[in-house]
Amino acid sequence: MRAAVWYGAKDVRVENVPVTPPGPGEVTIEVAYCGICGSDLHEYADGPHAIPVGDPHPLSGVAAPIVLGHEFCGTVTEVGGDVTGIAPGDRVAVEPHYRCGGCPRCLAGEYNICRHFGFAGLMGHGGLAECATVPAYMLHRLPEPVSLEQAAVFEPAAVALHAVRRAGIRPGETVAVLGLGPIGLLVTQLATHSGAGHVVVADRSPARRELALRLGAAEAGADLADVVAGEGADVVFEAVGSEDTLRACLAATRRGGRVMFLGLTGTVRLDAFALVNNEQTIMTSVGYRDAYPELIRLVAEEGVDLAGIVTSTIALEHVVREGFETLLRGQEQVKVLVRPRRQRP
Amino acid sequence: MRAAVWYGAKDVRVENVPVTPPGPGEVTIEVAYCGICGSDLHEYADGPHAIPVGDPHPLSGVAAPIVLGHEFCGTVTEVGGDVTGIAPGDRVAVEPHYRCGGCPRCLAGEYNICRHFGFAGLMGHGGLAECATVPAYMLHRLPEPVSLEQAAVFEPAAVALHAVRRAGIRPGETVAVLGLGPIGLLVTQLATHSGAGHVVVADRSPARRELALRLGAAEAGADLADVVAGEGADVVFEAVGSEDTLRACLAATRRGGRVMFLGLTGTVRLDAFALVNNEQTIMTSVGYRDAYPELIRLVAEEGVDLAGIVTSTIALEHVVREGFETLLRGQEQVKVLVRPRRQRP
Repeated sequence: MRAAVWYGAKDVRVENVPVTPPGPGEVTIEVAYCGICGSDLHEYADGPHAIPVGDPHPLSGVAAPIVLGHEFCGTVTEVGGDVTGIAPGDRVAVEPHYRCGGCPRCLAGEYNICRHFGFAGLMGHGGLAECATVPAYMLHRLPEPVSLEQAAVFEPAAVALHAVRRAGIRPGETVAVLGLGPIGLLVTQLATHSGAGHVVVADRSPARRELALRLGAAEAGADLADVVAGEGADVVFEAVGSEDTLRACLAATRRGGRVMFLGLTGTVRLDAFALVNNEQTIMTSVGYRDAYPELIRLVAEEGVDLAGIVTSTIALEHVVREGFETLLRGQEQVKVLVRPRRQRP
Repeated sequence: MRAAVWYGAKDVRVENVPVTPPGPGEVTIEVAYCGICGSDLHEYADGPHAIPVGDPHPLSGVAAPIVLGHEFCGTVTEVGGDVTGIAPGDRVAVEPHYRCGGCPRCLAGEYNICRHFGFAGLMGHGGLAECATVPAYMLHRLPEPVSLEQAAVFEPAAVALHAVRRAGIRPGETVAVLGLGPIGLLVTQLATHSGAGHVVVADRSPARRELALRLGAAEAGADLADVVAGEGADVVFEAVGSEDTLRACLAATRRGGRVMFLGLTGTVRLDAFALVNNEQTIMTSVGYRDAYPELIRLVAEEGVDLAGIVTSTIALEHVVREGFETLLRGQEQVKVLVRPRRQRP
């Protein structure tokens, strides 16, 4: 089969690799779509960051070269031993979090912060390929009303839903979102849908602000300070990941309010005196847990259009030029999906 | 009357000042005890920090020179107009938070983060004096079983209770406390009493560790890392206020756990990448709200001995030498109470 394989920074090759037959507890799927995530871009641009090189990841058992892509869905083609409830022909979304099942967090049901933190498509082989073989526990069967186009966006939508859940937004609260990449846009959509009173957003890109307004934002501006009025917002989502934007988010949060850090950055300087004196809470959110069933419900029963953030769908052969390079160059694209199999005529 | 008046750093004078008669909505009390707080020490050592100099504080209407002391209780001697439910002879604890009553936080009941943040004894005249005249809303009548010695510690106990409440400790959770000043010790006591499964503490002072063990700690050590086992504590209270201790607390918190910042410091460098990847929450707590009634109940009905942290009681005339200077010099004292009136023979 054809697959996009990461060998190193700026060295992702679309090449022929063998299909791995499903072992016990595993399932092979024919991939319908695989989205390109910011993490994939980081690995392409100047990785490795999360990709294991040399020592294999303890849960996937593999190291680079690795098949990229963790936002994928498709149709089951083959089922390994000891797998129940899944059969060839089932349409499925893949929840690519590995789980060791034995660490304190996995035992507490918080598998998103498993000691062996990992995702298929970064720490193990993923979905930028015609087929993918993954643990059966990663699969969610899609009911009839949920299209594969919607399921293709479940992974970033799960990140957004987990963050919105953790923020504990109460009815009528004012929410601000800084950064309108896929996650910021999906947070905007899901926070609006979850009963936030007023969602305001900020991003430098007029096109992304326009999209956020279509997804439910009440107001959009280039600067956060321009759209947050009065004493500040009750909850502010930081979906960029830089010291400046973290500070801008804290400044836009009311006394007693919450900031949700989603963006990944390094060491930052924060005014801890102001933080305490303003009795603000810094929350964080990484990955997701138990989110896919709710996403299925939101699409199937409430008609939420998660795929509204998709701006293009490309062929696997063009993933480097039309995918990674285009996304690195600028903001004209938001979510790029890859369709690994040639369209049947 | 005699009062300890702050004129500037290292310039606190015990001198004669007139008693202010209570205006409408005000009450005058004869002060039984007034504790010395770390904030008082900061004002004495190198203030002003919170004390208004020049422009008067908007709620107190006064600026330095100011009568220090915000941890006080006593007996009502005179009641101004428009005051109901309080009469001469009532024993009262003073909750010294000012409240503007009109800002969004006051209207939401969160008067501890009032826009005009202030305390009697820092931003207005306080209780290191024979008498104090304060707004009636600051007073809580003490029922018979609650002694003035217990009420003398209500103010720091309210700080601790507010932090323990905000931390939302669930039954069985492991709690760690770094820094065993009065607040850290009271957090230890109240967290234990609130059902924490296991409270471990750290401080360099063996005497303070000993006191913490008497107040309910299960384990005590000089270093936090020595007393926090396994994956880390569920909740860690930072009650020192420095960059190093903030980081030590984050390192001792489990994935998905909470750190409660109580100590006041300046700008700190934090590893935001680790914070997000570990899905940790930084909570903060400043002052208190609606805490005094629960403290009265804890003492009156559950027999909690808050005054266990008191290590000496001194005369007002000696507040500089035996109070501020002794506390600045070392850790042999924990909570020093001042008794402003001469003992009757």
